[in-house]
Amino acid sequence: MQALKIMKQFMEPQSVALIGVSRYTGEGAFNILENLLSYGYQGRIYPINPSVSEILGVKTYSSVAEVAYDIDLAVIATPRSLVPQLVKECADSNIKAIVIVAQGFSDASDEEGKQLQKEIDNIAKAGQARILGPNTFGTANAFINFSSSFVKIKMKKQPIGVICQTGVFFVGFSEIAFIGKGIDLGNACDISFSEGLEYFENDSETKVVALHIEGMQNPKAFADISQRITPKKPVLALKTGQSEQAAKASQSHTGSLTGRKEAWQAAFKQAGVIQVSDLEELIDLARTFSVLPLMKKSKIGVTTISGGLGIMAIDACKNLGIGIDRLSPKTQKLLDTMAPSWLKVSNPVDIWPLMMTSQPVMKPLIDGLEALLADHELGAVLFIGAAFDEKWGTGLCHLLSELAAAHQDKSLVCCIYGPYAEQTIKEMQDADKVVGFPTPERAMRALARLNEYSLLRSGL
Amino acid sequence: MQALKIMKQFMEPQSVALIGVSRYTGEGAFNILENLLSYGYQGRIYPINPSVSEILGVKTYSSVAEVAYDIDLAVIATPRSLVPQLVKECADSNIKAIVIVAQGFSDASDEEGKQLQKEIDNIAKAGQARILGPNTFGTANAFINFSSSFVKIKMKKQPIGVICQTGVFFVGFSEIAFIGKGIDLGNACDISFSEGLEYFENDSETKVVALHIEGMQNPKAFADISQRITPKKPVLALKTGQSEQAAKASQSHTGSLTGRKEAWQAAFKQAGVIQVSDLEELIDLARTFSVLPLMKKSKIGVTTISGGLGIMAIDACKNLGIGIDRLSPKTQKLLDTMAPSWLKVSNPVDIWPLMMTSQPVMKPLIDGLEALLADHELGAVLFIGAAFDEKWGTGLCHLLSELAAAHQDKSLVCCIYGPYAEQTIKEMQDADKVVGFPTPERAMRALARLNEYSLLRSGL
Repeated sequence: MQALKIMKQFMEPQSVALIGVSRYTGEGAFNILENLLSYGYQGRIYPINPSVSEILGVKTYSSVAEVAYDIDLAVIATPRSLVPQLVKECADSNIKAIVIVAQGFSDASDEEGKQLQKEIDNIAKAGQARILGPNTFGTANAFINFSSSFVKIKMKKQPIGVICQTGVFFVGFSEIAFIGKGIDLGNACDISFSEGLEYFENDSETKVVALHIEGMQNPKAFADISQRITPKKPVLALKTGQSEQAAKASQSHTGSLTGRKEAWQAAFKQAGVIQVSDLEELIDLARTFSVLPLMKKSKIGVTTISGGLGIMAIDACKNLGIGIDRLSPKTQKLLDTMAPSWLKVSNPVDIWPLMMTSQPVMKPLIDGLEALLADHELGAVLFIGAAFDEKWGTGLCHLLSELAAAHQDKSLVCCIYGPYAEQTIKEMQDADKVVGFPTPERAMRALARLNEYSLLRSGL
Repeated sequence: MQALKIMKQFMEPQSVALIGVSRYTGEGAFNILENLLSYGYQGRIYPINPSVSEILGVKTYSSVAEVAYDIDLAVIATPRSLVPQLVKECADSNIKAIVIVAQGFSDASDEEGKQLQKEIDNIAKAGQARILGPNTFGTANAFINFSSSFVKIKMKKQPIGVICQTGVFFVGFSEIAFIGKGIDLGNACDISFSEGLEYFENDSETKVVALHIEGMQNPKAFADISQRITPKKPVLALKTGQSEQAAKASQSHTGSLTGRKEAWQAAFKQAGVIQVSDLEELIDLARTFSVLPLMKKSKIGVTTISGGLGIMAIDACKNLGIGIDRLSPKTQKLLDTMAPSWLKVSNPVDIWPLMMTSQPVMKPLIDGLEALLADHELGAVLFIGAAFDEKWGTGLCHLLSELAAAHQDKSLVCCIYGPYAEQTIKEMQDADKVVGFPTPERAMRALARLNEYSLLRSGL
């Protein structure tokens, strides 16, 4: 519980000291204070800079000792040589949670770096304070508009908790403002995956946890706590640094020992952690698990305006070892009544010929989707359609979001092609009801992994 | 040569008859004439509709027989039952190239469909005319602003030739207006992959050929002509319908026999065709091969503002069986002078620590890229960077495009993350000098396949 209390100071600070914050602001200044103000953080901020009296209208202090109030979190952003002394000052001022932004500690190849690392390790070991980093963006929490990142980031109040060893996840990706809450471990000299997981285990605002792991000191503790969480929340993991060369690069990136590939695979499996194969899958699954319900059945229904993409969806199922099965008699009968006489409808339902022989043209598409969503034998539905233009895209987004809201027991994903696909997929992301993908293979992969985890949760 | 002449009529028609074009225009009307006018097609257009005298200001005719001029291409877009008679009329009017849009022939499950297919087959067999389709969008050619597609499509004058069995490739994807030139074979009752390949073999506007194959009647002819083309132009192939269920769906999609997976793999390899694993890879490689030069060396240099993504790039190389090797002494020496004393630079070059200790901040990034691009031991360079905001994204696009233009012997790809990544990748696509990807794994996969083909071309 002690660790959990400290983690709350890191993740939900009510007051923060910014040590070494610069008087320079604006583009290219990477000013943490400026970022915090722009997010609208409501906690107390104490900039520490002995050379000026205020920055951006906020009163500055010459040192943390000068601040007469409790400080939950200190963020140290100075050249590396100053860091040990500042950490000591924080500990002396009873600050228990410290983020060290600077690089050049265990990630450095010189002796000074190793020596500096040792000095801060000693303070942490003595129990005077807990340290996040060095070489880190720190933490982010969209729910309180807080981040210690010196790069200004986009956050979104979404139930995705990230523990990573690179600031990339704070900066995010086009498809997803990744961070609901984030912890960049950097070199992970003290705070590591275990403490992060313990925080997210107990955090009601987090529904899925995504991990980016280069390496760690204590895999046993990680396995134990993961095993405790995965029956309650899905945990996704991208393990990088799988080759000797990557391990070497990782040594100079975060000073991590990366470990053997097979050992990691076995450990993830044992703990119920969902291991992904690459960055794209991590993004896809974080989006999927944060939005969709678990699957009550393994069967997937597919309806598509493109027969050709429907076939790719079947190919993907075959490769993933899941099935697009025969539809239940009731659903089959319903679809048969909608089809032209020459067409035998099956799953995937090729809806385009039905649309071409119907007025209004959209009716078979909507009715077909309704039929699949109402089928109790199906756990999930994939819709494949096109955003021919902006209006079509927005229309699809509204239609699918409404259908998903009316069928909350079903996981609805879609594959969108056409010139407005990206925009439409983003709109769906914002609407938080359906998950969109640009290809049928990625949509099916997401459902396959959702199904795997759903089976794990149901004890099968 | 006869086939080639006919294919030019399909692909570069100077006059086109639109049989069965509707008087209805505007949204949802799927009017081919309206689309053609909007593209700015400069050829002669003869709409055939006996019920009206003009559509959208274009004089209509009651039948093709009534048209007193030569017609290169006829597009038949009527209900299926009328098709055989109309095909006969075209043949009688000496029209040698006919697109049949209607569905419900060999793709239908009823007897009437099979019978209709037989009737048009007989006309084709008698040598009176060549038929593309049925069940097709027809052809598209961005270079003359022409397409017979009833869905209005976006085209781009780019050296990508597509032969497909679904209109999806005409509609395109967000990352790419796919069509430079396109042939949708539909049911492929007559014109098939061989004729399409022969056209692209001889087409100076096409640099790479992308195939979407469900199945074909004459794989031997396909293999022969592919083998002839691949030493001159890269041919990419996505073979779908790999499972029994997919084969069944394909039967009702385009009436194709899909064939055995292993047989296809062997045939592609033998012919030097680059087989892709899914739709995303087909899109990625079409973009890559249409823009980048072949690789003169297999070694890849990487420079990254994210150490974490650099490690993912190494992992990808390991999985793909290619190497990120040690840099040449000259390049290494140059980079060493730029780095802080505590950092040992290697390939991938983690450039962020260099930027953080430099003014102006962008100098190490530019100098580092220059150093790699100038290194004669490298065949390609991967840059990993972020589009933190719109300005950064546009700046990166300009910088990379300029560098690529100055080093035309090197293939330059990049991985862009951050909230403006998609937009930046699109800008790069439009600039046609660099190829952008959202993840390091996809960027590396593209380079690995480019390298494979480069080795094939150099005879290694």
